[in-house]
Amino acid sequence: MKAAYYCGDRTVEIGECRVQSPSADQVRIEVAYCGVCGTDIHIYLGHQDRRIDMPQVIGHEMSGWVAEVGADVKGWTVGDPVVVRPLEACGACAACNAGNGHICQNLNFIGIDSPGAFQGSWTVPAHTLHRLPDDMPMTLGALVEPLAVACHDVRLGEVVPGEKVVVIGGGPIGLLNALVAQHAGAEVRVAEVNAFRLQAAHALGLETVHPLEEDLVSYVEAWTEGAGADAVFEVSGSQAGAEVMTKLAKVRGRIVVVAIFADAPKVDLFQFFWRELKMCGVRVYEPEDYDRAIELAASGALPLNELITERLPLDALPDAFARLTAGTDAVKILIDTQGE
Amino acid sequence: MKAAYYCGDRTVEIGECRVQSPSADQVRIEVAYCGVCGTDIHIYLGHQDRRIDMPQVIGHEMSGWVAEVGADVKGWTVGDPVVVRPLEACGACAACNAGNGHICQNLNFIGIDSPGAFQGSWTVPAHTLHRLPDDMPMTLGALVEPLAVACHDVRLGEVVPGEKVVVIGGGPIGLLNALVAQHAGAEVRVAEVNAFRLQAAHALGLETVHPLEEDLVSYVEAWTEGAGADAVFEVSGSQAGAEVMTKLAKVRGRIVVVAIFADAPKVDLFQFFWRELKMCGVRVYEPEDYDRAIELAASGALPLNELITERLPLDALPDAFARLTAGTDAVKILIDTQGE
Repeated sequence: MKAAYYCGDRTVEIGECRVQSPSADQVRIEVAYCGVCGTDIHIYLGHQDRRIDMPQVIGHEMSGWVAEVGADVKGWTVGDPVVVRPLEACGACAACNAGNGHICQNLNFIGIDSPGAFQGSWTVPAHTLHRLPDDMPMTLGALVEPLAVACHDVRLGEVVPGEKVVVIGGGPIGLLNALVAQHAGAEVRVAEVNAFRLQAAHALGLETVHPLEEDLVSYVEAWTEGAGADAVFEVSGSQAGAEVMTKLAKVRGRIVVVAIFADAPKVDLFQFFWRELKMCGVRVYEPEDYDRAIELAASGALPLNELITERLPLDALPDAFARLTAGTDAVKILIDTQGE
Repeated sequence: MKAAYYCGDRTVEIGECRVQSPSADQVRIEVAYCGVCGTDIHIYLGHQDRRIDMPQVIGHEMSGWVAEVGADVKGWTVGDPVVVRPLEACGACAACNAGNGHICQNLNFIGIDSPGAFQGSWTVPAHTLHRLPDDMPMTLGALVEPLAVACHDVRLGEVVPGEKVVVIGGGPIGLLNALVAQHAGAEVRVAEVNAFRLQAAHALGLETVHPLEEDLVSYVEAWTEGAGADAVFEVSGSQAGAEVMTKLAKVRGRIVVVAIFADAPKVDLFQFFWRELKMCGVRVYEPEDYDRAIELAASGALPLNELITERLPLDALPDAFARLTAGTDAVKILIDTQGE
C-alpha cells in the first residue's frame, strides 16, 4: 500500500504506507477515495508549513471501509463503509466548553495538523466516523466532507425557502453552497468570472452572472425588485468579492464569509450601519452537518457526480498538484488511494 | 421664539422660529431642550449637504410639551410631556414591508431630511410621539433619543447577564452603550484614548482601558481567561477600532457596528472564518427602544445627568458648534430652545 507525503516546497512524494494498528479508541480504515481540497493546495504551496510535521500524509475528503477496530471501540465492524469528520477537539478550551468543539481553540484538523487520508490505510479516532449507506458509491462518499461544509454554511446562513441568494465564487465549495441553498428552497445566482467554472455551474443546473460582463449590483437590484438579496455567500476570497458583498444584501440581509481571506480586504462598514447588515463567518462542520450531507448525497437530489472532473490513482497526485497550482481547470479531482 | 438655521459651510444662524400649525395628523410641540448630536456636527461640517434643504433647522435629541393638536390626532392633549422618535418611513419599500421601517429605504429622518428641533416650536407627525413621565425633568427627557440608540444597539447585540463586553470608543453613544450593557448584566470595559472621555467614563462608574498605554488584545485575553469577549461594540469609527475588533471577540463572539465609518476600513475576514465571528450593523431605534429608554431614564438606574456637560441657550448654538468642531471637550451639550 502506498501513501503520498507532503515534503514542503511544492513537493509531494509517493512512498510506502505506514500501516498503523489502532489503539483502544481508534479504528484503522482502508481508504477508498480522497478528494483534493483547496486546503490541500494551500498546503502544497507552503502556506500551512508551520502546522505540518513533514514529511506528512495530507488529505481529508475521503471515503473508505473499517479495516480494524480498537479494543474499546463499540458500534463499528470491519467492512463498514465510512467517512471521517476530521476534527479532534481539546475538550477543555472556552470554545469547547461553549459547545463549539468543531472550532476548538486548539483544534487538531486531521489531515493538516496530523496525518491525513492520501494513503491506503489510515488510523483515526473512532469518534470521527460517520456511517455511509451500504449502497453509496465510494466516489460519492468522498464528496461528503465538502458537502458537509456547504450544509454547515447554508445552515448558519439561515437560508429559508423563497429567499434570493447570491453566491460569489464558483469553485467547488461555492457550487456546493449554491446547490445546497437551492435545495433548501432558495433562488440562487452564482457570480463567477472563470469560463470553466461558469460551465461547471451550468452543468449543475445553476444560474450564473458574470460580473465583468454584467454589473452585479444592478443585476441583483433588478432581480430582487430593489430590495437586495436575502443572503450573500462570499466564497471568492477576493477584494472584489468583499467590496461587492455589502452592495448586494438587503436591509438586514445576511453575509456569510465562507472564503479564507489571506489578506484583510476593505469592507464598507458604513453599509453595515446603514442597512443593519449581518455577517457571520463559517468554518468546517458539526456532526449534524455530516449527517445532513450523507442524507442529501444518498437522496440523489443533487447532481453531485457532475462535480467529479477527474479520478486518478495515488501515483498521479504529485502531477495533479502541479497542474492545479499551474491553473488547470478542474472542479473536484478524486484520488483512488488503492490505485497505483 | 427663535430657531437655529444651518446655512451650509459651517454656518448656523439664529433667526425667527416659523411657527407652523399642525395639519390633521400632526402635533405642534413647544421644544424644551435639544441635545447636540454627533450627526449634527457632521451636518455642520457639510457632510450631509445633499440631504438638506438650506437654510434648515436641524436637531433631533429633544424633549418638549404638546402645544397644539391636529384635527384627527387622538390620545394627545396640550401640555403632555413628550419626546419625538424622528423617523418617518415610506411604508412601501421592501424594508418597510419586512417590518424594518426604522431603516426604511426612503427614510425621512426628521431633523436631517426635514426640519428639526433646534427651535422653540416644532411641528411633527403625531405617530412620532412618545410620552414622558410627568415628573421627568426635561433635561433628562432630551437624553431619551441617544439612550434609545444604545437600547437598540444592546438589544440587537443580544447582550445577556454575565457576558464580558468591550466598547471601543467613549463618546456619548459609546458611554451610553456601556451603561446600558452594564445595566443588562454585562461586565463592560470602555477602550478610549482621549483623557476627557476617560474621565467622563470614570465619572459614570465605568471601567476603562487606554489602548495606547496597555495592549488591548492582551488585556482582554487576560480578562476573559483566553476566551475572548462575548461582544464588542465598535463605536470609534476608526481603522484602529476596525482592526482590533476582530482580535477581541471570542469564538462565535458578536461584533456590533455602531459607528458611522466614513471610509471603508480593512477588516480581517480570516478571523470571521477562523472563529465563526458574527457582526451586525445597528442604526437608530424601533419604538420598543424608545419605550425602554424612557423606562430606563425614569428608573434612575443610570447616572444619565452626569453626561450633560453644558446647558446653553439657543443663541449659543453657533458658538457651540464652532467649539465642538475645534475639538473642545464635551460629552453632551443641551440647548434650551426657549432660552435666548
